[in-house]
Amino acid sequence: VNGLHGTVWLVGAGPGAPDLLTLRAARLLQEADVVLYDALVHPEIVALAGNARKISVGKRSGRISTEQRFIDRALVEAARHHARVVRLKGGDPMLFGRAQEEIDALEAAGIEYHVVPGVTAALAAAAELRTPLTSRGLSRSVAFATARSGRGTGEDDGWVDAIVGADTGILYMGVEHAARIAVSLIAAGKAALTPVAIVERASHPDSRTLRCTLAGLARGEIAEIATPAVLCIGEVFAKRDAEALQIAAGL
Amino acid sequence: VNGLHGTVWLVGAGPGAPDLLTLRAARLLQEADVVLYDALVHPEIVALAGNARKISVGKRSGRISTEQRFIDRALVEAARHHARVVRLKGGDPMLFGRAQEEIDALEAAGIEYHVVPGVTAALAAAAELRTPLTSRGLSRSVAFATARSGRGTGEDDGWVDAIVGADTGILYMGVEHAARIAVSLIAAGKAALTPVAIVERASHPDSRTLRCTLAGLARGEIAEIATPAVLCIGEVFAKRDAEALQIAAGL
Repeated sequence: VNGLHGTVWLVGAGPGAPDLLTLRAARLLQEADVVLYDALVHPEIVALAGNARKISVGKRSGRISTEQRFIDRALVEAARHHARVVRLKGGDPMLFGRAQEEIDALEAAGIEYHVVPGVTAALAAAAELRTPLTSRGLSRSVAFATARSGRGTGEDDGWVDAIVGADTGILYMGVEHAARIAVSLIAAGKAALTPVAIVERASHPDSRTLRCTLAGLARGEIAEIATPAVLCIGEVFAKRDAEALQIAAGL
Repeated sequence: VNGLHGTVWLVGAGPGAPDLLTLRAARLLQEADVVLYDALVHPEIVALAGNARKISVGKRSGRISTEQRFIDRALVEAARHHARVVRLKGGDPMLFGRAQEEIDALEAAGIEYHVVPGVTAALAAAAELRTPLTSRGLSRSVAFATARSGRGTGEDDGWVDAIVGADTGILYMGVEHAARIAVSLIAAGKAALTPVAIVERASHPDSRTLRCTLAGLARGEIAEIATPAVLCIGEVFAKRDAEALQIAAGL
């Protein structure tokens, strides 16, 4: 069956800045016949696919399930008529990328596919903050999660355990509920004075960082957050003073 | 002070394959005067720095603190004598990259620096496995941690809480103690039948995947693991059968 179909590459477009694309992704785009891309992907990245038919498949965080089904079908159709199909997804395809539905559709249709990893938003945020997510003596683990609701709403609260269990926690999406997220984490035992950094549009020229504590976030100190944004929680995000740095560096 | 010094870029070299480098990293290497690189970084990546003096600073996982102090000093010295210095680190610099020591040294010396994120090993492993780390209904969180010991050895066991708290868990390094890691996780309440996938040398041509359950791992079913490897734990790593896939895809 495979010989009759093209091949699909599920490709991570990285966190936003066009030059945080991988060399492999750039080459695959240049060679592609068809590209299906998320609306969040930077136009300069999409433009690398000079010879391809380019199909926008909507904004990732705004998708509903019928839209996902449409993408699955469009992907299978594209591979039935073209040799090289790129499915370009924001960040990394395997982390909050809803890739499983697309993989299921490709496998069920017997279409060959490959996955090309990308730089995920949390690491772009850490670069922006110049703060390692893990650090000797301070953090040996980091959890990435999504939150859609606070405790007691009846929805899945597994994200709370993940963030509380790790030394450093990063929440993708859901930042519009930041105050409720902070309330849930404090209720689950996370220290109220845990430092928080919110990085809006990591890696973009207009990226912005907002800082507070979990308690401050719960009190509504951060009024407005521009998306996409990641919510970074943990002792590693505390402001370090210059004197402590010089001692640490042995100067 | 800054005007007298060069600038340092802490750059992620990605998981291994040379073409999983970012476009930005490739450009910075081409423009660099000096490159200090981890021994694990692929020689083809280092070779991109055509005009630079190239200094190997040893294997990341084998470093001891005197070696780290040597790297910190070499980095500061390089920036005092050259305009463009690249510190090239395996994976992403902010995740298990021991970047804090180097950042402290640069800040204490008043040297300008930037961080360039990279593709981290866990995402290369997920691409290799073609398995999303998060998946609707199955996993909404993922924890990355390092383990150096089992429970009861007196060392920090925080990594256990992180892996148990998240739906999907990835252990970087420490895979030589895989059996002890599995014993610790089962003791802490992780289900014994949780699927495990070990990905050796993710993204390299000789990458290999070993599969078992947490119980199998604890029993010593996996005898030998080639490093670098990541240990992937969670329901998302269960083998899916074709019939279930066709139902999931609505075919």
